[in-house]
Amino acid sequence: MDIEALRRDTPGTAHRIHLNNAGAGLLSRQTLKAVTSHLELEATIGGYEAADQERDRIDATYGHLARLVGGTADEIALFDNSTHAWNAAFYAMTFKPGDRILTGRAEYGSGVLAYLQTARRTGAEIVVVPDDESGRLDTTALANLIDDRTRLVGLTHVPTSGGLVNPAAEVGRITRAAGVPFLLDATQSVGQFPVDVAEIGCDMLTATGRKFLRGPRGTGFLWVRTEALAFLEPHVIEIAAATWDGRRGFTWNDGARRFGTWEAGYAGVLGLSTAVRQALDLGMDEIGRRTLALGARLREQLDAVPGITTYDLGRQRCAIVTCKVDTMATADTAAALAAHGINVSTTDPAQTQFDTEARGVHPLLRLSPHYYNTEAEIDRAVEVLADLAAAHRPRPQNGAPERV
Amino acid sequence: MDIEALRRDTPGTAHRIHLNNAGAGLLSRQTLKAVTSHLELEATIGGYEAADQERDRIDATYGHLARLVGGTADEIALFDNSTHAWNAAFYAMTFKPGDRILTGRAEYGSGVLAYLQTARRTGAEIVVVPDDESGRLDTTALANLIDDRTRLVGLTHVPTSGGLVNPAAEVGRITRAAGVPFLLDATQSVGQFPVDVAEIGCDMLTATGRKFLRGPRGTGFLWVRTEALAFLEPHVIEIAAATWDGRRGFTWNDGARRFGTWEAGYAGVLGLSTAVRQALDLGMDEIGRRTLALGARLREQLDAVPGITTYDLGRQRCAIVTCKVDTMATADTAAALAAHGINVSTTDPAQTQFDTEARGVHPLLRLSPHYYNTEAEIDRAVEVLADLAAAHRPRPQNGAPERV
Repeated sequence: MDIEALRRDTPGTAHRIHLNNAGAGLLSRQTLKAVTSHLELEATIGGYEAADQERDRIDATYGHLARLVGGTADEIALFDNSTHAWNAAFYAMTFKPGDRILTGRAEYGSGVLAYLQTARRTGAEIVVVPDDESGRLDTTALANLIDDRTRLVGLTHVPTSGGLVNPAAEVGRITRAAGVPFLLDATQSVGQFPVDVAEIGCDMLTATGRKFLRGPRGTGFLWVRTEALAFLEPHVIEIAAATWDGRRGFTWNDGARRFGTWEAGYAGVLGLSTAVRQALDLGMDEIGRRTLALGARLREQLDAVPGITTYDLGRQRCAIVTCKVDTMATADTAAALAAHGINVSTTDPAQTQFDTEARGVHPLLRLSPHYYNTEAEIDRAVEVLADLAAAHRPRPQNGAPERV
Repeated sequence: MDIEALRRDTPGTAHRIHLNNAGAGLLSRQTLKAVTSHLELEATIGGYEAADQERDRIDATYGHLARLVGGTADEIALFDNSTHAWNAAFYAMTFKPGDRILTGRAEYGSGVLAYLQTARRTGAEIVVVPDDESGRLDTTALANLIDDRTRLVGLTHVPTSGGLVNPAAEVGRITRAAGVPFLLDATQSVGQFPVDVAEIGCDMLTATGRKFLRGPRGTGFLWVRTEALAFLEPHVIEIAAATWDGRRGFTWNDGARRFGTWEAGYAGVLGLSTAVRQALDLGMDEIGRRTLALGARLREQLDAVPGITTYDLGRQRCAIVTCKVDTMATADTAAALAAHGINVSTTDPAQTQFDTEARGVHPLLRLSPHYYNTEAEIDRAVEVLADLAAAHRPRPQNGAPERV
């Protein structure tokens, strides 16, 4: 990987040390151009006329996304974000009193709220599978909990709130053996390292464009296994999703298109398409090796700094690193980094509710490098954090000996 | 209105005679710049960081939209299109067997499918209120049909398939008197002429950014009267819509924000914001006067051409004009206009199902000028159509006298 060339094609690297790829990755020059060129075309010849002209490139997006996650083009539906994609899949299931949804502690905030709303509405029961000693979902516990009441396993692959990688493929082996649908929220994993639906064995997968895929904001997608359509009915309908029968009925369109939407920001879709092709051209194996190595470098260095604690769980960890300068409010630490031109974000207790219940550690500082970050940027962020930790070392009590 | 100045600020007017504003309006230079500038800012400093920097301008969008339709900022929720906004409102209602939804023949395709899906799911009954002799919704029939089984009146203000303006305010008087919720699909009316929720008396209104508002594709919004929240529960949830209670419950956020979404394409939102401010600055009264006058000019001229028939219904008609060169396939006519640099679109029988059932006239040619179109452009389109009609005049039968 020619990091310097990739950085030249990433304008933001000249302005910031961007360690907020778990928020939104930096757009490449090519992706930015794909979006703005289409907007300019729309302004020049008209919005519908521009879409007609670029129809083949728009349609090719489905194939690129399918290649990315290992499915087929007709198993892909486009959305304006991952949450809407996830909701399209989740709310397409029906639950009755006593049905069980098994999930884990790493679940994303919107998914947790959807579970709670569904439990309240339908009488279904939400069961949070405990973690193993490493902090990842305990697959033995999951296997023991699955029974004939279990209607769904919903799992977040990589949480918004830490570097954990949940054992998705082990979960997939269990759900397939039990014949239970498996919905994987891969918002933070797709684009960060290889994610393959065949290898994982999930039935539905959702992801976003804007994070590690480096696509534009306002893009996301759902992959749904063709066989899973048998137990899904889209919870809303529109002209792109179904075909009128000429009387007072309709049939759902084939494949994942039944979850699709007629009107979209096609400039964003073309940007997503470009970003996905770039990821495929670079190679997800290559990308994954580098992001995980940069994450490990960052975590190890932070672990070595007195006054800083890291909080990432699990056995396999990724490029999301959560930590705290022990003696500082997290928001202050983030603001201090911003003042040094370093982009990070902070975790929100309400966006990772089960983890908050279990650990109570949020808000944490969240640093998330991507392949285009340099080792020097990682080291610089650690240096600034170490300085902050040193500057905020607790003063000795009156009369107490100063620890040095 | 300084039409020449407005055209200079509308790059597309130099390239096409754009009579497809009912599809997507042409972006102004200012709106295009609002979108591309934000994308460039995202590429320069990061997607979240750009949104933080522009937070006040993003938040102001709600107020602009509220001013546009006569509501308050906390009654507005943003969506990626009008259909999603409409679905958010419609599917937030609950229906039981025997409940009735009253609607009209002008209903948009996605709404019709939603009615059919809901009837199938819940046992609610869909009643299509007949038209009066002019072809608009018959308000006397509506008043007679409303009874204690009626749970909702859903109406399309201006159809996708013609120049009809439905009598929304008369419908509003009837629904308010009866205490029945009224959902108005204003996708084709907002931005074309003044639409005021107080004057109309609807409870929910949905609209899109891309059509007569001249905003970017991938934008739309819902206005919902505060009092209507009492009978609505959003059919999906996410972190922007509700607040976790710290245990296993949540409360909906205040106002229309409970329909809101955390992640959006903020470049598009800022473009929408700019387009709405331009409409407010020009004045919707002024815009409405000109669009309706251009529509009337176009319709009257087409009516005078032998071999062309117009198909617009109702007493009040707007800037959407539907017609047919009697002896040509509609798609061929549209292609011939495109070859002359004239953008139009065609109606789709499946996108206006009840109208198709009633009239069977689709597909029709749809021409939809906006205020930035000139009288000369209207006249040019008519001239091209008249030439097409003349060229496709049916040849006389053998031996029959030629009509001249």
